[in-house]
Amino acid sequence: MADPITVSVELGNRSYPIFIGSDLLTERELFTPYIKGSQVCIISNDVVAPLYLEKLKAVLTGFELKEFILPDGEAEKTLDNIAHIYDALLSDRFERNVTLIALGGGVIGDMAGFVAATYLRGVNFIQVPTSLLAQVDSSVGGKTGVNRPLGKNMVGAFYQPQCVVADTNTLNTLPNKELSAGLAEVIKYGLINNLEFFNWLEANIVNLTQRNKDSLVHAIKTSCEEKAKIVTADEKETGIRATLNLGHTFGHAIEAAMGYGSWLHGEAVAIGMLMAADLSWRLGKLNIEDVASIKALLKVAGLPVVPPESITKSEYLSLMSRDKKNVKGSIRFVLLEKIGKALLTADVDSNLLEQTLQAGRTMGETS
Amino acid sequence: MADPITVSVELGNRSYPIFIGSDLLTERELFTPYIKGSQVCIISNDVVAPLYLEKLKAVLTGFELKEFILPDGEAEKTLDNIAHIYDALLSDRFERNVTLIALGGGVIGDMAGFVAATYLRGVNFIQVPTSLLAQVDSSVGGKTGVNRPLGKNMVGAFYQPQCVVADTNTLNTLPNKELSAGLAEVIKYGLINNLEFFNWLEANIVNLTQRNKDSLVHAIKTSCEEKAKIVTADEKETGIRATLNLGHTFGHAIEAAMGYGSWLHGEAVAIGMLMAADLSWRLGKLNIEDVASIKALLKVAGLPVVPPESITKSEYLSLMSRDKKNVKGSIRFVLLEKIGKALLTADVDSNLLEQTLQAGRTMGETS
Repeated sequence: MADPITVSVELGNRSYPIFIGSDLLTERELFTPYIKGSQVCIISNDVVAPLYLEKLKAVLTGFELKEFILPDGEAEKTLDNIAHIYDALLSDRFERNVTLIALGGGVIGDMAGFVAATYLRGVNFIQVPTSLLAQVDSSVGGKTGVNRPLGKNMVGAFYQPQCVVADTNTLNTLPNKELSAGLAEVIKYGLINNLEFFNWLEANIVNLTQRNKDSLVHAIKTSCEEKAKIVTADEKETGIRATLNLGHTFGHAIEAAMGYGSWLHGEAVAIGMLMAADLSWRLGKLNIEDVASIKALLKVAGLPVVPPESITKSEYLSLMSRDKKNVKGSIRFVLLEKIGKALLTADVDSNLLEQTLQAGRTMGETS
Repeated sequence: MADPITVSVELGNRSYPIFIGSDLLTERELFTPYIKGSQVCIISNDVVAPLYLEKLKAVLTGFELKEFILPDGEAEKTLDNIAHIYDALLSDRFERNVTLIALGGGVIGDMAGFVAATYLRGVNFIQVPTSLLAQVDSSVGGKTGVNRPLGKNMVGAFYQPQCVVADTNTLNTLPNKELSAGLAEVIKYGLINNLEFFNWLEANIVNLTQRNKDSLVHAIKTSCEEKAKIVTADEKETGIRATLNLGHTFGHAIEAAMGYGSWLHGEAVAIGMLMAADLSWRLGKLNIEDVASIKALLKVAGLPVVPPESITKSEYLSLMSRDKKNVKGSIRFVLLEKIGKALLTADVDSNLLEQTLQAGRTMGETS
């Protein structure tokens, strides 16, 4: 193992390290200092477990090990599955000192984190994100949760892990489509807060799609640092943290309208960011060349740049009105003042919003 | 309204006041400073709501009010019901600024608190406990949760309310059996930490069973103060807070074995405290006269002093082995060194434990 890069998430007595590098999954000393009891339960899914479960278990000799393997997919992020995990832990007499390990993508991380937050009123957990999206997004900030039929992530808790182990080797087995979905969130950090990183991404996007190790480590590290800065400033999302939701207001609506799991979260966010950019331009905030740069970068990253045609304007509005960020019934949007600077506003002209919702493949284009 | 007595629960930026007194339910100014948004949802049950819901709603004019009424009883403390509440809030577009009000006993408080802890990853809530048990127990400490088939309160979160309004008038409609159940927890505070209060209770127990207002206010205030002291010292129950579970290790096993709801929680705790006292005596820690005083006080308080005969020794042991306090598989007991001083230990001779489990109506008696 090369020495891992460490990003610290500073949250007082809930601070924790993120280890980033290759071949980390088999490094016992990255895990054991963060496991306080003798019981460990690994929560994973049926796509990731065949690839990495035995490897991880081999590293954790000496612990009382248990595993809980869910079917893959966003559609599994339900309270019913959470209840199954509780009951499996209870029937094996897993106690307050248990450490849960989330081995998988964002869905597994969100669910294992929610179980950790609520099993016996809270136990420890470690994140081992195996998708790019989970490594750059779910590994920082402690958001955990499940979906309800009326909305994504509507139930959950803020709950921090003991540590995060982001092994870039696990990205080797990631389908292209999911690598791209992760790049959507990487691009997001450039857009909301870091022009220089956005420029670096434009220069390195092909390396990233080709899974160049050094490029991936840099992208993951920078993304985690950007997110950690924001989360440290606003752990419970009472202010600036909401800017991390760039693209998510539209994106969540797309995911809900198409049925959870039919669009990848990152794909929906990519379209959502482009819609936010388009709306920012219509509101006179972002210039049209920047919208074009964003669209171009998303495209080269292998991401969709045309929203699904089947969603009607009123569907969008109805779904967006359920967003967790809303205050007093009005939709709060994360928009762009320029590349590298997000802003949060509920003050959006409804005609311009409708234009964005109807722009389809002509988004960001003067017509 | 007489000016309410206020007990402060000191937990840094999660500190909150408990207001205790008569006629508090109709005092708007006890509520409105603790409601930040315009939406309020009252969660109650079908026994309490007919008595107090309209009264409370009349005080909250000007807010967007919603109510969610559950059937009464411990058997309702399920994840399914929690999911119903989530979905009702979502379908009415209740946002992050919503304040939930728990109007009812411990079951309602635990459930509303758990919804508050997890709906949209956390919203505000106010406790309006209407049973004596809830006023002296659930109103301090932020424990929220639901039951699973394999154990009581196995799922939950530590989550503090904005304030607690304990109106002693609501005790007028409380059945005798439930008043007694509340007195079990009141007696507990004397037993674990306050000999003087135990002596006061011996002198005033008849007044309390006759619902003398001043006696009730003193008992509630002292109980809340005792609990607040312990919770302030150990919010997440890593140490001393576990002593609040005096009687609960046995009590939870009784509740589970008899089926949730067939024994009141306070009744099971009363028997559990007597069993803990009996075991403490067998271990040479408590003298037999003290066991007799405890038994006598519980009896005058209208509480059962003989465990259900149908529970076998092995059932007890199996159920107690699932207790949340356990470490490395061994049962941790809260015992009494003397009246007014609890101790926590896993070091219990199994023969003596079996004697306690089999003592039945001869508990605390040399045979």
